[in-house]
Amino acid sequence: MVTVQEARKLIHENCGSSKIEEIPLIKSCGLVLAEEVYAPIDTPPFDQSAMDGYAFSFDDWDKHADFKVTGEVQAGNYLSQELIPNQAVRIFTGAALPMGTDTVVMQEKVVLNDSYIRVEDDKIIKGSNVRLRASQTKKDTVVLNKNHLLTPASISFLAGIGIEKVKIFSPPTISIIVTGKELIKPGQAIEDGKIYESNSFGLIAALEQLNITPVSVDWVDDDEEQIRKIISNWLQSDILILTGGVSVGDYDFVSSALEKCGVKKIFHKVKQKPGKPFYFGKFKDTLVFGLPGNPASVLTCFYEYVVNAVSSFTLKKYYEKLMMPLANSYTKKPGLTYFLKGISNSENVSILPHQESYMMDSYAQANCLIELEEGEENFSQGEIVPVLKFI
Amino acid sequence: MVTVQEARKLIHENCGSSKIEEIPLIKSCGLVLAEEVYAPIDTPPFDQSAMDGYAFSFDDWDKHADFKVTGEVQAGNYLSQELIPNQAVRIFTGAALPMGTDTVVMQEKVVLNDSYIRVEDDKIIKGSNVRLRASQTKKDTVVLNKNHLLTPASISFLAGIGIEKVKIFSPPTISIIVTGKELIKPGQAIEDGKIYESNSFGLIAALEQLNITPVSVDWVDDDEEQIRKIISNWLQSDILILTGGVSVGDYDFVSSALEKCGVKKIFHKVKQKPGKPFYFGKFKDTLVFGLPGNPASVLTCFYEYVVNAVSSFTLKKYYEKLMMPLANSYTKKPGLTYFLKGISNSENVSILPHQESYMMDSYAQANCLIELEEGEENFSQGEIVPVLKFI
Repeated sequence: MVTVQEARKLIHENCGSSKIEEIPLIKSCGLVLAEEVYAPIDTPPFDQSAMDGYAFSFDDWDKHADFKVTGEVQAGNYLSQELIPNQAVRIFTGAALPMGTDTVVMQEKVVLNDSYIRVEDDKIIKGSNVRLRASQTKKDTVVLNKNHLLTPASISFLAGIGIEKVKIFSPPTISIIVTGKELIKPGQAIEDGKIYESNSFGLIAALEQLNITPVSVDWVDDDEEQIRKIISNWLQSDILILTGGVSVGDYDFVSSALEKCGVKKIFHKVKQKPGKPFYFGKFKDTLVFGLPGNPASVLTCFYEYVVNAVSSFTLKKYYEKLMMPLANSYTKKPGLTYFLKGISNSENVSILPHQESYMMDSYAQANCLIELEEGEENFSQGEIVPVLKFI
Repeated sequence: MVTVQEARKLIHENCGSSKIEEIPLIKSCGLVLAEEVYAPIDTPPFDQSAMDGYAFSFDDWDKHADFKVTGEVQAGNYLSQELIPNQAVRIFTGAALPMGTDTVVMQEKVVLNDSYIRVEDDKIIKGSNVRLRASQTKKDTVVLNKNHLLTPASISFLAGIGIEKVKIFSPPTISIIVTGKELIKPGQAIEDGKIYESNSFGLIAALEQLNITPVSVDWVDDDEEQIRKIISNWLQSDILILTGGVSVGDYDFVSSALEKCGVKKIFHKVKQKPGKPFYFGKFKDTLVFGLPGNPASVLTCFYEYVVNAVSSFTLKKYYEKLMMPLANSYTKKPGLTYFLKGISNSENVSILPHQESYMMDSYAQANCLIELEEGEENFSQGEIVPVLKFI
């Protein structure tokens, strides 16, 4: 039996085989860049008008004369004609300044007379209302660093400089195996001695919040041979999650089935509540988590351990761990770390009722897990404790 | 031209036609319950052992005699035989207690002698190691309230009481129309006068973070007739988002095309930077947002306005608005509300460089928008300002 700290350390030491993949930019939101991004072009790619108005050459501007408007350039068009002094062009926001021009006067600041304009703008200076070429990005310079988290704004930015694919740290492939003879599917009528299977639901939803769809979900009876077969089907996944059957009862076959499949046990049993029978092992690079079958144990081990393993692949931090004061006092048995369902607000964190590992009604109300240290027994109101926020 | 406060109020007043839909529980993560959920069964559905051990009747226990073990009940099985005094059954975690039993002794606390056991447990009381029927939920009582946000734990809880479908507030259907003659797709070679289209990328990613996939994305030239046709294709969506062409230039056809489609303008132009030409209108129940085409304006109007409209459908709060002290002083022009790209930490919020509406490199680094009030000009370091956190 290991401590929570040892379990964390052992999982951490056995993770770390992140893989890099090139994917379409549009699919990359929430993922982390696996390499620096260089700008393929200057942006703006040309001197660009920031306004609807008229473009001209500031230095050649004879303030006593009107400009002759010799053409028009709409955004998306390009005027190849080079302007000479005393000529201006009608220009619109986003359009490229024609050669020979460097300044734009807003349309509200001119007097228009047939095809001539008079500029009436005291504040205009050279370069007014122009977005200079390369003022955002310069070609071949680094514009986003490795390990950058891709947000909608990052994606808009990269699209705007012409990037359509990015290299990211791939999310792990994850397989789920739910064990238990007592389980029937929600929606069916309940039978004597049976309960509804809920762990696949909790895990699929929790993975969805990490933007991961499991590659497989299997349900299997408490039968060592069947469990072994299904495990061996999915040992090529990056992460294999099993629920139930991991304790030491006569019908707990998960750890023996894993052993027969060649999975190397890293630890089995953690000094914690809930989730004491928690198992962690490895088969080549595949991380194997055996979660105790009670639904609160499953989700708590997921949030406290499996999420960190997912992070080791994606290099993304999913949930915040904060230090917060307890709203109520609490007494626990020493010798186990407790993970308690809690509700935090901006001030403090409250411990919910119904902490037993089969109770999910309280978990449904929780927005965090409160960690109470193994060695301690009495926690007073106001004591600062670690809190894992998952909402 | 309306103020930011007026724009918010007008959008709020014109929203509110949330729709209710029944969907599979497994698809409901992150959505909000549209009705109370009643427990269809007691849970646990029977008195259940919390341990591997032996079940017996506490009141009939003769402490001077051993129990005869007359059977075994594995989780998922059911023993219909009723026990009599001096009989016990082998029982496993999660299994139903046979009739005539009410207490479980852990297997570690018995002395086993052939088919007899002697209980050696000082602390055992009536009901020890038993999860009573209905101790989590009682049949026909409310177990989750209307407006409850469905989390992985809520979903696991509901599955565990046998629920497989839930009524939720439906996310809106959203169509995107990107306008602009100057736009080419990322991945293609850049051409004179053209820029890369990025707004569909930013919007699709921002919607993905709200768990919404747009029902359509169209690209259209600055041509009133074409814009009108595409608008009329998608006026049955709950929300229609257009980008670009919403100003008053010679080639800005969005507001006239909307008018020709029968969309009623609610407001056009907001006293804000970026995004001054922002348009909001309505066609029957369809909300129509015309976002100015610069990519920073698009995302800022999305975060500040469109997200609230989405919330009016889903009843979900997506992003937090906090009050935070400025890390740096800032001077702006009075008369417009400024929304500035910022980075917040636990202490304060910093204003990033490159605030122009065509600059996305800074937005890519931002985790929030800082709101600076319309009337004010000078903001000092430490001044408390509203901050919309989107990461």
